[in-house]
Amino acid sequence: MRVALISTGGTIEKTYDELRGVLENQVSVLDIMLASLELRGIEVHRVALMNKDSLDMSPEDHTLIARSAAQLAATHDGVVVVHGTDRLAVSGHRVVELAGTPPSPIVFTGAMRPYELRSTDALQNLTEALLAVQLVKPGVYVAMHNQVLQFPGVIKDVQRRTFAKPGGGAGG
Amino acid sequence: MRVALISTGGTIEKTYDELRGVLENQVSVLDIMLASLELRGIEVHRVALMNKDSLDMSPEDHTLIARSAAQLAATHDGVVVVHGTDRLAVSGHRVVELAGTPPSPIVFTGAMRPYELRSTDALQNLTEALLAVQLVKPGVYVAMHNQVLQFPGVIKDVQRRTFAKPGGGAGG
Amino acid sequence: MRVALISTGGTIEKTYDELRGVLENQVSVLDIMLASLELRGIEVHRVALMNKDSLDMSPEDHTLIARSAAQLAATHDGVVVVHGTDRLAVSGHRVVELAGTPPSPIVFTGAMRPYELRSTDALQNLTEALLAVQLVKPGVYVAMHNQVLQFPGVIKDVQRRTFAKPGGGAGG
Amino acid sequence: MRVALISTGGTIEKTYDELRGVLENQVSVLDIMLASLELRGIEVHRVALMNKDSLDMSPEDHTLIARSAAQLAATHDGVVVVHGTDRLAVSGHRVVELAGTPPSPIVFTGAMRPYELRSTDALQNLTEALLAVQLVKPGVYVAMHNQVLQFPGVIKDVQRRTFAKPGGGAGG
Repeated sequence: MRVALISTGGTIEKTYDELRGVLENQVSVLDIMLASLELRGIEVHRVALMNKDSLDMSPEDHTLIARSAAQLAATHDGVVVVHGTDRLAVSGHRVVELAGTPPSPIVFTGAMRPYELRSTDALQNLTEALLAVQLVKPGVYVAMHNQVLQFPGVIKDVQRRTFAKPGGGAGG
Repeated sequence: MRVALISTGGTIEKTYDELRGVLENQVSVLDIMLASLELRGIEVHRVALMNKDSLDMSPEDHTLIARSAAQLAATHDGVVVVHGTDRLAVSGHRVVELAGTPPSPIVFTGAMRPYELRSTDALQNLTEALLAVQLVKPGVYVAMHNQVLQFPGVIKDVQRRTFAKPGGGAGG
Repeated sequence: MRVALISTGGTIEKTYDELRGVLENQVSVLDIMLASLELRGIEVHRVALMNKDSLDMSPEDHTLIARSAAQLAATHDGVVVVHGTDRLAVSGHRVVELAGTPPSPIVFTGAMRPYELRSTDALQNLTEALLAVQLVKPGVYVAMHNQVLQFPGVIKDVQRRTFAKPGGGAGG
Repeated sequence: MRVALISTGGTIEKTYDELRGVLENQVSVLDIMLASLELRGIEVHRVALMNKDSLDMSPEDHTLIARSAAQLAATHDGVVVVHGTDRLAVSGHRVVELAGTPPSPIVFTGAMRPYELRSTDALQNLTEALLAVQLVKPGVYVAMHNQVLQFPGVIKDVQRRTFAKPGGGAGG
C-alpha cells in the first residue's frame, strides 16, 4: 500500500532552541519518528510541504495543503497530513470543499505535545494515522488520541485538549 | 465504545529481574502502557487472564483465552488480547474454530521487544490494536507493526520478525 | 552524608503548557528526577525556595538564595542548588561575597534543555552535582556537563552553551 | 584532561536478542551512551578490551583488565573501566595487587540494569565515573549509585543491589 505523508509543521514537529529557550518549527523531526516505528503495512512517500505553526497559516496555505492532499490521493492508496492542531480543522474542511470525497482516504493528525517532549502524544497519533489510512473508506478524517473522526463537522475541543465531532461518529 | 482488554503475558509484558539478569513475565506492565496513551475513543475494561510466555501455554490455555475472548465479544463493542507472539496464531485460530465470526471484533497484539526496552514496539502495537478494534468489522485479527491481518491464515514470520498472511489481505 | 537540595527553578524544571504551547516554571519536577536516580551516598533534604526563570530574578532573590545556601551549609555536609543558567553565576558569586568559604561545599547546577525534553541534560547535571558535593573541599562550585568549576571567576559561555572559567581550574 | 575508557562488557552493555528473547553482550552500546552525554571536562580515549558477562571472566581476563588499566593510568590523567558488577571487585582488587597506587585515578563502573532498559542506571553510573575520575586522588575506585568507594575492601552487596565498603569511606 503506497501512502503519501505530507508534513506542514505544527506542535508535533517543534524543536527546542537552546539559546532562546523556546519551542519552534525549524526542522522536521518526522523522519526520526518514522524511523522509530515498524511499518510493514505501507510504503511511505514523504512530501515536505511547509513547516509552520498552524496559527501562522494563511488562507493560501490551507488551500495549498488541501489541493496537494487531494492530488496525492489520486495517485496513492492514501494520504496522511501532519498538521498543527489549532487550524487542522480549517485545512480538513478545505479538502472537503475542494475535493468532496477524494479517491483514497486523507487522514490528518498532529499532537498536543511536541515529539521532543518525553510526554509527547506525537508517536501515538502518527501511529494511529498510518493505520487508519489503511482501514477507512475514501473520505477526509482526523486520527488522534485513539479516535478517527470524519469531516465535515470536526472541531478542536480546546477545553478537553483533543478533537471532537459534536453529533459524533467514527470512520470505517 | 466499550472494549475488553485481555492480558495473557508474552514478551510485551516481560520485566527485568535484576538479581538473575533475565527478562520474565512477572507483573503486568499493561496499566503503565495504558496510562501513557491518550484514549478518547474507548472505555477499557481490563481482564487479567494469565501472565505467561506463550511458549509455556498448554492447549487448555489457548482454549481458555479463545473462550474468554469470544464471551467478552458478546458483551463489549470489541476485544483486544495482549499475547506472546510465538503462539499468538494458535490462540487466534482457536477463536475462529470455537466462535467463527464473533459478535464484535477481536484483535490480538503483542511485541517483539518488551515494553521495558527503550527500543520496544509495545506501545506502537497496543496503539494499533486499540484503534483497529474500533474500525474493523466483526472477525478475528492481529494488529501489529502497522498491519491488520484477519484470521484464519495468519502466521508468525520468524525471519522477518513480524506477522504475515501468505495470500494476503488486511481487514476493514 | 546529609545534603540540602535547594530548588529555585530555571530551565531544568520548566514544564510544557499545552494550551499556550510554551515551556514555563510552574511545578517542580525535581522530585521526579530524584526518584529516577539511585542515591546511596547521600540523604537528601529538599528545600523549595522559589520557582523562577533566573532572568526574572531580582537582586533580593540572588541574596536570598546565597543566604539560604550559606546557612544550610552550616547544618549539612553539603548543599546543591538547582538554578537557571542565565544568572547562576550571579548567585554563585553572591555566595562568595556573603560567605567566603562556606563550612561545607555548595554546588550549583542547572540545565540547557528542560528535563521534560527527551534530549535533556538535566539528569546528567543533577547526577554530577550530587556526586561532586561529596568529593570537593568546602567552597562554591558549578557542576555541569562533566565539569566542576570553582567560584569566583565562573561565567556562562553562551557561545559554547556551557559554563567556563577563563584562566581555568576544576575543584578537588 | 585525557581519560582512557576501557570497556569489558557486563550488564551495562547487554543488548536484546529478538529471536531468542534474551539480553546478551554482543555489541558495545558505550558509544551511544557517550554520545548522549555532554562531556566538556574530558577527552575520552576508547579502549575496547573485551565484551563479556563478568561471570564468564577467567583469572587471565581479570589480570588483563588490571594490567591494561594500570598501563593506561601512566599515559592518561585517569582511567574509567566499564565492567560487569558480579566480578567487578575481583578486577578492582587485582589492580591494587599488581599496581598499588596507580599514577592516576582508575575508576570502575557498571550497571544493575542494562542501558537498553528504560529504567537503566547505566547513564547515571557512567556520568559518575567520568566525573569522579577528575576529582579523586590517584587510587582504585568504584563509582556507582551516587557513591565513590576506594579499593581495597569494596564488595558487591547483592542484597541491596549496589556496592558497599564495610567499614566505609568515600574517596577524595
